[in-house]
Amino acid sequence: MKKIRVVVPVSVDVWNEPIKELYDQHKGSDTEVTVVNIPKGSASVECRYDAGWSELFTVLEAEKAESEGCAGVIIYCFGEPGLLLAKEKLTIPVVGISEAGVHFASMLGKRFSVITVGPSPEISVGYLEDNLERYDLAHKCASIRVAVMEILDLMGDPEHEAQLVLAEAKKAVEDDGADTIVLGCGSMLGMEKRITNELGVPVVVPGIAALKVCEDLIEMGLAQSKRFFALPPEKERTL
Amino acid sequence: MKKIRVVVPVSVDVWNEPIKELYDQHKGSDTEVTVVNIPKGSASVECRYDAGWSELFTVLEAEKAESEGCAGVIIYCFGEPGLLLAKEKLTIPVVGISEAGVHFASMLGKRFSVITVGPSPEISVGYLEDNLERYDLAHKCASIRVAVMEILDLMGDPEHEAQLVLAEAKKAVEDDGADTIVLGCGSMLGMEKRITNELGVPVVVPGIAALKVCEDLIEMGLAQSKRFFALPPEKERTL
Amino acid sequence: MKKIRVVVPVSVDVWNEPIKELYDQHKGSDTEVTVVNIPKGSASVECRYDAGWSELFTVLEAEKAESEGCAGVIIYCFGEPGLLLAKEKLTIPVVGISEAGVHFASMLGKRFSVITVGPSPEISVGYLEDNLERYDLAHKCASIRVAVMEILDLMGDPEHEAQLVLAEAKKAVEDDGADTIVLGCGSMLGMEKRITNELGVPVVVPGIAALKVCEDLIEMGLAQSKRFFALPPEKERTL
Amino acid sequence: MKKIRVVVPVSVDVWNEPIKELYDQHKGSDTEVTVVNIPKGSASVECRYDAGWSELFTVLEAEKAESEGCAGVIIYCFGEPGLLLAKEKLTIPVVGISEAGVHFASMLGKRFSVITVGPSPEISVGYLEDNLERYDLAHKCASIRVAVMEILDLMGDPEHEAQLVLAEAKKAVEDDGADTIVLGCGSMLGMEKRITNELGVPVVVPGIAALKVCEDLIEMGLAQSKRFFALPPEKERTL
Amino acid sequence: MKKIRVVVPVSVDVWNEPIKELYDQHKGSDTEVTVVNIPKGSASVECRYDAGWSELFTVLEAEKAESEGCAGVIIYCFGEPGLLLAKEKLTIPVVGISEAGVHFASMLGKRFSVITVGPSPEISVGYLEDNLERYDLAHKCASIRVAVMEILDLMGDPEHEAQLVLAEAKKAVEDDGADTIVLGCGSMLGMEKRITNELGVPVVVPGIAALKVCEDLIEMGLAQSKRFFALPPEKERTL
Amino acid sequence: MKKIRVVVPVSVDVWNEPIKELYDQHKGSDTEVTVVNIPKGSASVECRYDAGWSELFTVLEAEKAESEGCAGVIIYCFGEPGLLLAKEKLTIPVVGISEAGVHFASMLGKRFSVITVGPSPEISVGYLEDNLERYDLAHKCASIRVAVMEILDLMGDPEHEAQLVLAEAKKAVEDDGADTIVLGCGSMLGMEKRITNELGVPVVVPGIAALKVCEDLIEMGLAQSKRFFALPPEKERTL
Repeated sequence: MKKIRVVVPVSVDVWNEPIKELYDQHKGSDTEVTVVNIPKGSASVECRYDAGWSELFTVLEAEKAESEGCAGVIIYCFGEPGLLLAKEKLTIPVVGISEAGVHFASMLGKRFSVITVGPSPEISVGYLEDNLERYDLAHKCASIRVAVMEILDLMGDPEHEAQLVLAEAKKAVEDDGADTIVLGCGSMLGMEKRITNELGVPVVVPGIAALKVCEDLIEMGLAQSKRFFALPPEKERTL
Repeated sequence: MKKIRVVVPVSVDVWNEPIKELYDQHKGSDTEVTVVNIPKGSASVECRYDAGWSELFTVLEAEKAESEGCAGVIIYCFGEPGLLLAKEKLTIPVVGISEAGVHFASMLGKRFSVITVGPSPEISVGYLEDNLERYDLAHKCASIRVAVMEILDLMGDPEHEAQLVLAEAKKAVEDDGADTIVLGCGSMLGMEKRITNELGVPVVVPGIAALKVCEDLIEMGLAQSKRFFALPPEKERTL
Repeated sequence: MKKIRVVVPVSVDVWNEPIKELYDQHKGSDTEVTVVNIPKGSASVECRYDAGWSELFTVLEAEKAESEGCAGVIIYCFGEPGLLLAKEKLTIPVVGISEAGVHFASMLGKRFSVITVGPSPEISVGYLEDNLERYDLAHKCASIRVAVMEILDLMGDPEHEAQLVLAEAKKAVEDDGADTIVLGCGSMLGMEKRITNELGVPVVVPGIAALKVCEDLIEMGLAQSKRFFALPPEKERTL
Repeated sequence: MKKIRVVVPVSVDVWNEPIKELYDQHKGSDTEVTVVNIPKGSASVECRYDAGWSELFTVLEAEKAESEGCAGVIIYCFGEPGLLLAKEKLTIPVVGISEAGVHFASMLGKRFSVITVGPSPEISVGYLEDNLERYDLAHKCASIRVAVMEILDLMGDPEHEAQLVLAEAKKAVEDDGADTIVLGCGSMLGMEKRITNELGVPVVVPGIAALKVCEDLIEMGLAQSKRFFALPPEKERTL
Repeated sequence: MKKIRVVVPVSVDVWNEPIKELYDQHKGSDTEVTVVNIPKGSASVECRYDAGWSELFTVLEAEKAESEGCAGVIIYCFGEPGLLLAKEKLTIPVVGISEAGVHFASMLGKRFSVITVGPSPEISVGYLEDNLERYDLAHKCASIRVAVMEILDLMGDPEHEAQLVLAEAKKAVEDDGADTIVLGCGSMLGMEKRITNELGVPVVVPGIAALKVCEDLIEMGLAQSKRFFALPPEKERTL
Repeated sequence: MKKIRVVVPVSVDVWNEPIKELYDQHKGSDTEVTVVNIPKGSASVECRYDAGWSELFTVLEAEKAESEGCAGVIIYCFGEPGLLLAKEKLTIPVVGISEAGVHFASMLGKRFSVITVGPSPEISVGYLEDNLERYDLAHKCASIRVAVMEILDLMGDPEHEAQLVLAEAKKAVEDDGADTIVLGCGSMLGMEKRITNELGVPVVVPGIAALKVCEDLIEMGLAQSKRFFALPPEKERTL
């Protein structure tokens, strides 16, 4: 049995249940998924500053997962607060949904676009660009486009949201030359088929991609290299 | 049931059985794997010229797999003859073992080295370098190192082979700065644990990586983008 | 006397005569050019899949040229099927028209655009982009633009073709920032002056560029490096 | 009067006094410098995980500085925890010592090396490499070299430390091709002249570089662009 | 006292006085600035050819400054004729206004645009692009835009000039994605506040940036590395 | 008849005769070559500063060549003083020997090394590196190696020089991974065969490469693009 812990790096629990359902649909038969949010930090993660508030609480949840015997951890947020820290501190595989999503996308074509939602392009784009460079895949990114919307409102009017996301995806394909779309927010569940039908391009759902990568790494007995993500030395750290 | 066809792009059938065994160990419970070699072409693929001899026969086998109802195809050779052609012609996912291997490696650290076997560094390195650029991941490659040996002799003296491969892996880590190793030949089965134990770095077996990526893409309903790998037009082609 | 063999990698012979005429106009006085097409393969080369069908027959013609005492070989197709294979197998210089064309273009300015003809942008662009990366000159390419047309119809209505190509060249210069144009298809003969007159930028005809590079290499006693294009080992290969 | 607040992102106060002295020597006559450490977090910052512990407390100190009327903030640590977050949240200029140091270095030559101290190369190099990519100057970095030593011991035996740092600087210049050295730790005070004398290359002290950049930005009325570092939206965040 | 010599690399003296005034406003209290133009060369520097005419006279003025005891030299022209030569020949710091400007800009955001004035985009853009590559910062440049105007007319109608420059800056931010503006001509004095007010992005005045960098280097005891800018050997050179 | 003028950008005439002989051996039957040096400037070109002294006199000779009816100009020095200026000012093709040499080299393999002679590596390498970036081919350069020797002594002891150059070429191939060699000084005549015989790699003689490129461009009716090398505006320039 592969025990995978999903850490949602926000201080609210509204996403836990939908993520659990999504993962139960897509997981392998010998995978067991548990989903937790963080006790403190930011209520949503839309910018670097939010990520800074959630980061430490996220990595502490990841450490707890390892100590409780989990075989892998997924950081369920496109901004991936705490991902690199957890890769250092843990010896089990730690996977971020963005890194998994963009790696699959880069195997499907030449240029992917990320479509995310957020309060404004200025807030989201710089932050996500920095992240993409972290995976050394920024050169395969045709564009990052933002459907302007509050993340916490996403569960309100799904059809309106779908229209906005679809409009940005269309511009990504037609104007920016994207051949593949990555949904850039962990909360845009269930839109992939619609985009593929209308635009004829593959759409990667990063949450599912991360689940698959995490299962694969466990299956192959692999985790992040300790020559690049060396274990932190012991020392006094206080919160 | 996910039906996956593995095409071994050489005109001999000696690899079919070991690959089938490897895949049956690692496949998911609802995956069914069949392994075929090609009827004509090159007896082994060590350079671009060999790849050119095997390419067309490989893609024809891939087309046959699609017409027989397979859900995915794996090209089982690190040189991946016919991979891009098959991605154009087929609408089911086509995965090469090198592309899958280096994508996993690039998620585990900053710099991977490929360790392959071949008759000389000159023959193998240029050929494999060209391939890596195809995935836009050449900048993450610390080095390509060759354990000098004939591929067709690989089944002869496994301990000698292991020593040679291990020596190159050690140089990759200590001299070239690699934090992750990719075994660069589909035939080096069973060496990964030994390298990890001796060098403390993760070792990606590209054949298994390709199996996992292929299963994942089928599970996610994804295949190569037809905006980058557009279907070839109809015309007269003769063999 | 420099004997140069031109291999047209298509299974029809309609291009042999016009190419022979073009080359006889532009060759040096001590150059002798012979033009052949391939006996089997694809009737035209518009995508990776076509290239795969023509590749092996092309390299076999190149080998024949070397055995018949030619001093150089030109692969006359912008997609250059078999080029790298022939560079491995032969010790005389092998030149592709695309590689020669883009190298001259990159000496004339900062950014060139390739204007080609084909059945659709999706089919041509990805294929040609992959090729450009092979010469490590992709970063000097402002754009690849496709005048949508069937290659085999090119000989039908030259004025219509000219209008379409000119329109794309104009967009390349004005919208994409190109300062130099490369005609991206071996069959667009005789359009260069018209584009230069209307747009004021140099236009490289890749077929002539390849003739000049091939003559130059023979004159200088140079051929592809056998440290990067090492001779293939002997082994069984069947067709 | 330019009021500059220096935030030392560690939970101990041992560095405050030496930094204050260094800055008082080098500041302009109309600059006033105050130095604070953080109340909680990590006792030293040697890896990503340490940075994660110190990050939030660092940015909170930076916010306090702005609210108290400071005209600029310096994050005094080569790992720069919280730098990007503070650039988002504040409208006064925020400068990291690494970013300032490598920018000056890149104006002095073609290739700089960073010499730092730390418990092992594995722990320091990956972490600092990620940071360099953040400034888009990684391509100018010849190497990152680590004098193996505990940071908290740095004040113990300065001559031993100097020998170790000098030995790594020598290898950077002679083996890695560096023409300029950046001291990669805020705590290596007073070594620059010795290295310059022995190796004949300029040595950038990042702490002083940051002081100068911060003064310059205040003088020029400049701060980080709010189109790339947009102000975070209001929301619930808890600690 | 830091004695800084500003060399204006044109054969007319109309810019000396305004530059002197600008520098006296922005210099530190212990800095003394003298401004000279060159006795021969080009009357303005708008292209590579102009730079070639002014280059030698500029470096001779820089040599004179060093022999007269100056502590630093600034080449006051965005095209920076003679900059690299002077960095070789002198051991005191030599700073170009473009290099200083784009380094500050690259610390403020992700992508800067250069707005310059000139007789046509064709004349200015290629020339300035080549320069940007010299600092290895071309990848951070969103665009180079030209307000079409004769440089020697700049002092005529400042409002008209301001309108043209502002219009290009607006396109840089809105169409090209720039988050920071660099004024690309040493003569566009006093426009920075207006652009910042209207567009909300920081605007770097390269002349002031160069003054600050030159003062900083003198303060830190740094100059260009003699391992990259080695002293020229003695030999016969005639003018 | 193609009239080509070779400008040797040094104030001594010792190279004119050997270059004329070399060119007469390699030129096409309808090419006529004249060789001139410059009346003033630097006696040899070994660094940026030398280039600055020779640059203006070189471009004036190039202008004279155009006005006298030449069809092409070659700047015969690996450092290429005045090349870009002449490309702007002239409408006939202007070719530098370095640009021609490295373009041919990059068509022959993956990585070339430049072997030059000079008084020290520090003096030559930085200067030549800057030049390579100008052709956007720096990424194909494995190394620049310097056989330490005074250029003006080259005609003295050819066997000693040959030994030094050969030793550096061997290190380039064996240690730096070069598959092709470019002789980086216009004065190393007649060494190419010896290096090829001993090291088995192609050796490009840049002077001959430039002759061929210049003849080719004239034959094809091509010259540098006036959209990137726009004609300089009229203005007062004095010497």
